[in-house]
Amino acid sequence: MKNLEQQGEAARRAARVMMTASTGQKNEALAGMAQALLDGCADILAANREDLEAARQGGMSEAMLDRLALSEKRVQDMAEGIRQVQALPDPVGEIVEGSVRPNGLQVQKVRVPLGVIGMIYEARPNVTSDAAALCLKAGNVVILRGGKEAIRSNTAIVSALSRGLEKAGLPAECVQLVGDTSRESATAMMRMSGVLDVLIPRGGAGLIKSVVENSRVPVIETGVGNCHIFVDETADLKQATDIVFNAKTSRPSVCNAAETLLVHEAIAQQALPQIAARLAEKNVELRGCPRSCEILSQAVPAVESDWKDEFLDYILAVRVVRDLDEALAHIARYSTGHSEAIVTRDYENAMRFTREVDSAAVYVNASTRFTDGGELGLGAEIGISTQKLHARGPMGVLTLTSTKHVILGNGQIR
Amino acid sequence: MKNLEQQGEAARRAARVMMTASTGQKNEALAGMAQALLDGCADILAANREDLEAARQGGMSEAMLDRLALSEKRVQDMAEGIRQVQALPDPVGEIVEGSVRPNGLQVQKVRVPLGVIGMIYEARPNVTSDAAALCLKAGNVVILRGGKEAIRSNTAIVSALSRGLEKAGLPAECVQLVGDTSRESATAMMRMSGVLDVLIPRGGAGLIKSVVENSRVPVIETGVGNCHIFVDETADLKQATDIVFNAKTSRPSVCNAAETLLVHEAIAQQALPQIAARLAEKNVELRGCPRSCEILSQAVPAVESDWKDEFLDYILAVRVVRDLDEALAHIARYSTGHSEAIVTRDYENAMRFTREVDSAAVYVNASTRFTDGGELGLGAEIGISTQKLHARGPMGVLTLTSTKHVILGNGQIR
Repeated sequence: MKNLEQQGEAARRAARVMMTASTGQKNEALAGMAQALLDGCADILAANREDLEAARQGGMSEAMLDRLALSEKRVQDMAEGIRQVQALPDPVGEIVEGSVRPNGLQVQKVRVPLGVIGMIYEARPNVTSDAAALCLKAGNVVILRGGKEAIRSNTAIVSALSRGLEKAGLPAECVQLVGDTSRESATAMMRMSGVLDVLIPRGGAGLIKSVVENSRVPVIETGVGNCHIFVDETADLKQATDIVFNAKTSRPSVCNAAETLLVHEAIAQQALPQIAARLAEKNVELRGCPRSCEILSQAVPAVESDWKDEFLDYILAVRVVRDLDEALAHIARYSTGHSEAIVTRDYENAMRFTREVDSAAVYVNASTRFTDGGELGLGAEIGISTQKLHARGPMGVLTLTSTKHVILGNGQIR
Repeated sequence: MKNLEQQGEAARRAARVMMTASTGQKNEALAGMAQALLDGCADILAANREDLEAARQGGMSEAMLDRLALSEKRVQDMAEGIRQVQALPDPVGEIVEGSVRPNGLQVQKVRVPLGVIGMIYEARPNVTSDAAALCLKAGNVVILRGGKEAIRSNTAIVSALSRGLEKAGLPAECVQLVGDTSRESATAMMRMSGVLDVLIPRGGAGLIKSVVENSRVPVIETGVGNCHIFVDETADLKQATDIVFNAKTSRPSVCNAAETLLVHEAIAQQALPQIAARLAEKNVELRGCPRSCEILSQAVPAVESDWKDEFLDYILAVRVVRDLDEALAHIARYSTGHSEAIVTRDYENAMRFTREVDSAAVYVNASTRFTDGGELGLGAEIGISTQKLHARGPMGVLTLTSTKHVILGNGQIR
């Protein structure tokens, strides 16, 4: 097995090949990768069983075991995911803008691959094939460093993907897995400037923080979502109840789930019991400010960390606010810049909320759960960026490209 | 004087104001800033004289003293630069794309300010007003940390700019200067994640490397340009000579100046003496590969570092290559990804060069000196990015923005 340095060198060589790979070649490779997953399904499931067995012995929770587990159906879904990426338009080569300068120089801004992308992620083995497919579509080489729990599954998956790549005449090194899943290998990737063009961490807050703080390679920060919903004085109460219930309970473990409910004081007495009754259907624990606790006997007093943390669980922080300004100030202070929503019938407040909330996705009268590449019409995504540089929100295939200027002259000098 | 932490807090407050500042307000502020520079010219020149005096006593070279020196004319140019930024279209609020989803959600991708931008730079005091104007135009707050040699000039400039800002009703804290010019203040800025949205270093290779390696804040890497010109077998020799002469000697101290000349072996015997003769007009020192040295008696043998370094001086590295492939391999190995040019009459080689050279600007039959915001039609620039994330090449006002998704619904849940 290659060490990380050798993998990096192989990746840079492969990236030079990928710069000029045609759409046809890349699509053929993606088709081959999808087919290779199906053909290799038995091997992948066998490897996954070993991962599951080891994880069970290590005491992994049932919820986590479920994330790790593959089945024939899940492998088919992974293959189908690759085929969907195959069907996307090829972003590379697009002339984003172009003009002729007064001196006759033809200036074109052309979309090109980023080059070599590093991904550090945890848990689910389907991220391995999703990320590989999206990176390849945009002409990139990817070095994947998954979690140690999934190493056998990931190895089997990447081995299948490599067979698909080679059949299409592209270097197998376009998709590489880091064999060493120790903390040291993650740290080593963060030091690979000049080799990696970007590093994308995907996982829990701890992983992301560590990468952001330590990486010398440019990072795209993903995913931590402390999402807020503000129920304004004029909100339609049924709508507010549906949206809060959906945003909190439809899938509490994901980053676009709501974590804090802010309610205008003029409507709190009426709204909170109604919303709380609905959330009780799913046994949602409420952690409230003093005024919420007065209204809701079932709420427990919130502590400072409840406003800050992403619960990723059936828990909701609740605060009564004086007005929109106090809601905006709370969000400015505690939000992670992922997704926030207002429920209101007031036009001016809706407009102010969309202007003044500085998050990747800002909603009026809709659930925060729509912050997702597919839901927003971007196709498959590699994560949700909560930073402002390069990509913000769901990261589709376009965010895995850069541009360069191509300038055609006939002897111009300055 | 505020410390850096207080400056950061003030900047975040100001950024919330700037999020909703109108185009009219920002343009009024820019006009006020330009006028305040003119009104404060005497103070600025007095401060600059003190900087110059201190620098002279410190033994600063004449070339550097010239970069530091201001005059009435230069202050007028700075004011004129601000007025040109004022005349640019306001990028903020543009709906970059929009669609209605099948469930009726209206999705808009809207251009917004980045927020708070940190700049660490050296030498020239005009960077202070240029950067302030561009950041403000895009609705950003900027924290400027210039070099210690220019601290008195920069203080006077920022004080004038603040007066202009306040007259227009915008917070003076939109443009802040870090008073402490020690290495520690630069390091402290690199730790300001959560406060700074991006950090832009502008200066020598050492400064940029240090920021890239140490910053926890997302960085846009600028400027180091080890630029190559490849003279192909079929090049028009007069054109090649003009382009090499221009790219090397029109302003050797800047990042888009050529540093290495690659010549196809079939034309080397004829081309090199001609190009060398022309470069001799400016006493350009040539550092050649063994074959170049055989052809050019005046060349000294190049060492490995000559292929790597940005000379920023009247020095050119020269290498004879077997063919385009060898030229591309040399560039892939030594280029900093800034600007490279081919001089050729061969269509296929021109196309291959533009596709296979992975740099911010790739030229056919033109001087590398055109890599500049103004020359490429982007307006004023805040630097030239040599990274692939977010911005690549000359960074105009658009690169100082981000986007957010605004999603307008009527009760949609998922």
